[in-house]
Amino acid sequence: MLRAQYEKRGKPPQDVIRAVEFAKPVLQQGQVLVEVLASPINPSDVLTLTGEYGLLPPLPAIGGNEGVGRVAELGPGAAGPPVGQLVLLPPQSGTWSTHLVAEGKALLPLPNDADPLQLAMMTVNPPTALLLLREFVELKPGDWVIQNAANSAVGTYLVQLARARGIHTVNIVRRPEAVDGVREAGGDIVLVDGPDLAKRVAEASSGAAIRLGIDAVAGEAIERLAECLAPGGVLVNYGRMSAQPCIIQPSAFIFRDLTLRGFWLALWYRQATPEQRVQLLTEVAQLIASGKLRARVQATYDVSEIREAVAAAAAGERDGKILVVPRH
Amino acid sequence: MLRAQYEKRGKPPQDVIRAVEFAKPVLQQGQVLVEVLASPINPSDVLTLTGEYGLLPPLPAIGGNEGVGRVAELGPGAAGPPVGQLVLLPPQSGTWSTHLVAEGKALLPLPNDADPLQLAMMTVNPPTALLLLREFVELKPGDWVIQNAANSAVGTYLVQLARARGIHTVNIVRRPEAVDGVREAGGDIVLVDGPDLAKRVAEASSGAAIRLGIDAVAGEAIERLAECLAPGGVLVNYGRMSAQPCIIQPSAFIFRDLTLRGFWLALWYRQATPEQRVQLLTEVAQLIASGKLRARVQATYDVSEIREAVAAAAAGERDGKILVVPRH
Repeated sequence: MLRAQYEKRGKPPQDVIRAVEFAKPVLQQGQVLVEVLASPINPSDVLTLTGEYGLLPPLPAIGGNEGVGRVAELGPGAAGPPVGQLVLLPPQSGTWSTHLVAEGKALLPLPNDADPLQLAMMTVNPPTALLLLREFVELKPGDWVIQNAANSAVGTYLVQLARARGIHTVNIVRRPEAVDGVREAGGDIVLVDGPDLAKRVAEASSGAAIRLGIDAVAGEAIERLAECLAPGGVLVNYGRMSAQPCIIQPSAFIFRDLTLRGFWLALWYRQATPEQRVQLLTEVAQLIASGKLRARVQATYDVSEIREAVAAAAAGERDGKILVVPRH
Repeated sequence: MLRAQYEKRGKPPQDVIRAVEFAKPVLQQGQVLVEVLASPINPSDVLTLTGEYGLLPPLPAIGGNEGVGRVAELGPGAAGPPVGQLVLLPPQSGTWSTHLVAEGKALLPLPNDADPLQLAMMTVNPPTALLLLREFVELKPGDWVIQNAANSAVGTYLVQLARARGIHTVNIVRRPEAVDGVREAGGDIVLVDGPDLAKRVAEASSGAAIRLGIDAVAGEAIERLAECLAPGGVLVNYGRMSAQPCIIQPSAFIFRDLTLRGFWLALWYRQATPEQRVQLLTEVAQLIASGKLRARVQATYDVSEIREAVAAAAAGERDGKILVVPRH
């Protein structure tokens, strides 16, 4: 059995983590052994390794915060899903591992016939996209939303979710090569970030009043997004891909009455009731199982290749998600 | 008769404006002649001269947007306050003038025995302070608010209004020399901006949860203010004394759930009903007449000295307001 462990935090993130062997654990009362099938490397995982995330586990720690597996063995008195059942791994359980031990009754069963790679990515990015689109501005079919980093995993899910609700999307990407992918995912308008963005957005959308802007870049990109919003609009920041602070002219707030807020899924989960959490996850699992929500996968790596995997995930320009898929 | 006129906008602001003579106007039906007693030079007036304000009058224009005067002569069929009555000048009427013409029935009468210099400053800064303290976060007696530029006119009014409501204030100033003035105005805590601000604020306030932050500086000062707020707090920007954009780390929004909004009195006036406007102005006039609200005056200038007056108002470091007080 193999897992990806780190004893310190720092940069570059791939240098602080390594694959280490561990002995098969003895299962205690109520515990089950889960064989991990797939676990993604999210931006928040990379920031956790570098020490820049808002929530840092005590050291030493096992990397990875979401994924799916199959129940392999039941410990004494274990309740919950039977052996062979596809299950969601518990959050923050160190999922970059060939196996992990969990409380049987804490495991959420998932549709056995759905793609485990797609389900492995279900607890972080799809709920983020779903809540970004739902919690800040009440949007009706025919309304518009604008987002940058549109070719990210969250961006792609957001396009799919907006489309399913009849909401139009303006999608901003940083590289011309990313345009086609976002169009294929269903984006109504896809533009490359740069000068005159607001003018180009107004032309392409026939001057639509855009009341929600979703930013994962910060820096000066958030100002360009702000300029695209209608007066009174809401800007939601959920990432800082530019590694810069948010830089916005006061006139956006003073003269144009914009509001800037933030979104953090961990905070939402913390404030939600257990029923709200299960309801959200069930909604997302159904959307994925039905094929309405899916993300591109760029590459998969075994646990033994964790350093290459983290380096690939930390590289700025990707065309899909990096996942740890343990060889069994 | 003399008034301060400008034909173009630019920097420095004192170079685009000059005092010009004009003939006594012939009063039309319903009009009255008002002798101007006092009119302040606000930051928004300076930004209007340089062309940086959100609302710019057509050129040529007369400077000044608020003030008080005394009715000097009634035109044919003029209704409203009688000759000799102290009145509020109509907004955006070009108030840096010895005289101006107004619709008699549009004039709001003011208490004749109150200080005209204090009343001259009543439509811009006191309502700004009052609404900043009332429109964004519901504060109860014993709650805390933090503001920077605390020795500005708005800042001083805000201290007085908070004190009257039993709300505690943390006041940030840029110069040590400004501390005493804010303490004298009634500020509970007064600190000089700089490194470790959040730590110093927490110590001085015994770790009080501050849910409202009021920023008139922007730049990196707004980030330091953000760090002082409790999670879920609201930051309101209403000025940019640093001449910088707002620069704030995404973590303030994402991990600490802060909200950044803006406030512009002109927008509030535009969206308010006439009854709401009169109610607000009456409330403010009463607070000033009773002595509960007052601002420091640094110097007064005749209309003929408009360039010196604007230069003094545009200088960053002042200890009170600059007013145009026409010699009659």
